[in-house]
Amino acid sequence: MKIFIQKNLNEKKINELFERPAQKNNSTIVIVKKIIDDVKKNGHQSVIKYAKKYDGLNGDSILISKNILVEQAEKINVELKNSIDKAYENIYKFHSLQYPKSISVETMKGIECQKKYLPIENVGLYIPGGSAVLFSTLLMLAIPAKIAGCKRIVVCSPVKNEINSALAYVATKIGIDEFYSVGGAHAIAMMAYGTEKVKKVDKIFGPGNQYVTLAKTLVSNDYNGSSVDMPAGPSEVLVIADKFANPKYVAADLLSQAEHGIDSQVILLTNEIEFARKVLSEINLQIKNLPRRKIVEACLINSFILVVNNLDDAIQLSNNYAPEHLIINTKNFKSLAKKIKNAGSVFLGGYSPESVGDYASGTNHSLPTYGYAKAIGGVDILSFMKSISFQTLTKNGLKNISSTVVKMAEEEKLNAHANAVKVRLK
Amino acid sequence: MKIFIQKNLNEKKINELFERPAQKNNSTIVIVKKIIDDVKKNGHQSVIKYAKKYDGLNGDSILISKNILVEQAEKINVELKNSIDKAYENIYKFHSLQYPKSISVETMKGIECQKKYLPIENVGLYIPGGSAVLFSTLLMLAIPAKIAGCKRIVVCSPVKNEINSALAYVATKIGIDEFYSVGGAHAIAMMAYGTEKVKKVDKIFGPGNQYVTLAKTLVSNDYNGSSVDMPAGPSEVLVIADKFANPKYVAADLLSQAEHGIDSQVILLTNEIEFARKVLSEINLQIKNLPRRKIVEACLINSFILVVNNLDDAIQLSNNYAPEHLIINTKNFKSLAKKIKNAGSVFLGGYSPESVGDYASGTNHSLPTYGYAKAIGGVDILSFMKSISFQTLTKNGLKNISSTVVKMAEEEKLNAHANAVKVRLK
Repeated sequence: MKIFIQKNLNEKKINELFERPAQKNNSTIVIVKKIIDDVKKNGHQSVIKYAKKYDGLNGDSILISKNILVEQAEKINVELKNSIDKAYENIYKFHSLQYPKSISVETMKGIECQKKYLPIENVGLYIPGGSAVLFSTLLMLAIPAKIAGCKRIVVCSPVKNEINSALAYVATKIGIDEFYSVGGAHAIAMMAYGTEKVKKVDKIFGPGNQYVTLAKTLVSNDYNGSSVDMPAGPSEVLVIADKFANPKYVAADLLSQAEHGIDSQVILLTNEIEFARKVLSEINLQIKNLPRRKIVEACLINSFILVVNNLDDAIQLSNNYAPEHLIINTKNFKSLAKKIKNAGSVFLGGYSPESVGDYASGTNHSLPTYGYAKAIGGVDILSFMKSISFQTLTKNGLKNISSTVVKMAEEEKLNAHANAVKVRLK
Repeated sequence: MKIFIQKNLNEKKINELFERPAQKNNSTIVIVKKIIDDVKKNGHQSVIKYAKKYDGLNGDSILISKNILVEQAEKINVELKNSIDKAYENIYKFHSLQYPKSISVETMKGIECQKKYLPIENVGLYIPGGSAVLFSTLLMLAIPAKIAGCKRIVVCSPVKNEINSALAYVATKIGIDEFYSVGGAHAIAMMAYGTEKVKKVDKIFGPGNQYVTLAKTLVSNDYNGSSVDMPAGPSEVLVIADKFANPKYVAADLLSQAEHGIDSQVILLTNEIEFARKVLSEINLQIKNLPRRKIVEACLINSFILVVNNLDDAIQLSNNYAPEHLIINTKNFKSLAKKIKNAGSVFLGGYSPESVGDYASGTNHSLPTYGYAKAIGGVDILSFMKSISFQTLTKNGLKNISSTVVKMAEEEKLNAHANAVKVRLK
């Protein structure tokens, strides 16, 4: 992890420094397209075929029955159960406050306009398998889905042998309707298009490897496919810290993000070169004891420390970068927080490590990466709902607005639009 | 426009009837990709090149100055000006009620979680040129952008010769920051990637032809591109009517949607064969006087009337179809409205033609087509904003949650995540 000095760099160099590693899909696109087409054409049997090939499925059934979920959930150790219960409570509390209110207003006499929010009926949640079972992601996706009132919540996760007890516990606690042991692009295709065995969903959520994220992009571009939560890139954190911060804490925060994957990006902006050096030596100390040390070391090659001219510059650089996670560990974090324009989730002060938001503070950990925070926020209740507009006009209401509509429609050369008003008032 | 009878059709036939016409992009994708790559590589000069080729640009400037906008706006006739002012007022009123409230809650003692809504800083609005200038679309996009507080609102529209006075009036009334006379895929590429002359935007809104909508899809799939409002398909209306409705009104509503384009789809569901026949003969009468008769006739080939077993079946079929526009013109429209699960904008009763929502009732006319209403709503204030989560923990707050976070992180084998908590409490 190198240290750079802002005043020694021109604007072009600064921009290059903050450039995210390019995302290339060319090598996987042929494979993923083939899998999707196969599932669209051959349905369930091709899902089973790929599940055997890629997920290590034994037998011909991908459905994990409710009985098995309950049975496995009972095996959870009590300490972990209590931790999940506490996280559940906080996430539930924060997300239920987001439930939207419907709107109703008489815009003119006799013209009532409403906006109602309704749950998306069928949602699919993808939970990666791989080296660790991310039961926390199921909490983050299924709790808002439940609060939103989604009628059917489908989960796909590639389960090796028997389902992890923590994942089973979360699934039973929240009440998942259908749980399938299937992963990869074939799981996404199954949810997006449906098969003889599994009804299609309206929107797919959740992180995944390059095959999963590419499959999500492809099905969301297809008119007969499914919507998706958001585009996915590697996870990232940007830390802004000054000399009042503890270098140990800052080092630990950078390392916690770095263990996500070799393509993660971690950035520290500080206004003191001395502080930058202290953090770097703390990183070199703490890294020694990490089980995922190799991943962390690879990640730190993409990462950097920049000594900025002042903290206002730091905020401006951060706003341009639009980090998924932003930690502000400075004395004046409150005033800096007001200047934030683009970020996914923000952690303020010395006692707010990113990991509390990853698990249990109450906020969601499904967040926009790769600069998408400029345009979209993280997963919330509204991610699982959509709005519908309603209008009801009385005959007088229509009279009041008729000349306006007729004039505008005729100007746009849409005479049949004008007629639909005129015919009613003849 | 054919009449079908529900009880004579099996489920497969019904599904085929409601299938939307396939969207094919294969022939245009090569052209659009080439234009986008050219603009990415060669910037402003290639935008000018395509604007000359496709938009009929004279000279080398695409920027329409504020002076010219004001000058042209003054040429608007007073009746049209008053109509636009009235529409503006209703749209403003309905949309400002949607402004979201920030959330703040102490999920546990010492853990404060917040969700704040901030405007997307740079937005681009695409307004099609072509046979008519859709100034109403500028109202529908720029009013919520302004209420949301977007810092920079860019408009692209291919202007022939001089800018239409209604469009100029709307642009000056709302206060557009930059207005460019450029259309097509090159306008989308310019906004998504930026050039030496035009700074990139964070999100692009607005309808367009197949080149524009494909370009929007492509830039939204590119990590360095831009977000977009929603996927676009042909416009559509589904009308549910019973014998208490006036067949003249229903015919006019179907025709008003049909004049949008030959690929539009209009559907009538009614529980009375006699009523279906009356509507059909009204269509044949009213169609004679329409200036866009050829478009309407072509559209009606894709369209149909279905005589349903009962109105509850009609609602269920409509929920499965998820129409962009839904008109319920029945005696019991209030009770049917409660059963709606998927639709973009709904028009209730005999005096609520779709065209009032297209222009002036107050609701937005940028709506999800092609079944996307199952997962997304129309354009609103939140389309121009994003949320950011914040969390601030005290030392005691961190203590209260520490064992929960450490336990969950270690179970997920993310030890550096656990360390970021532990190091602070040593």
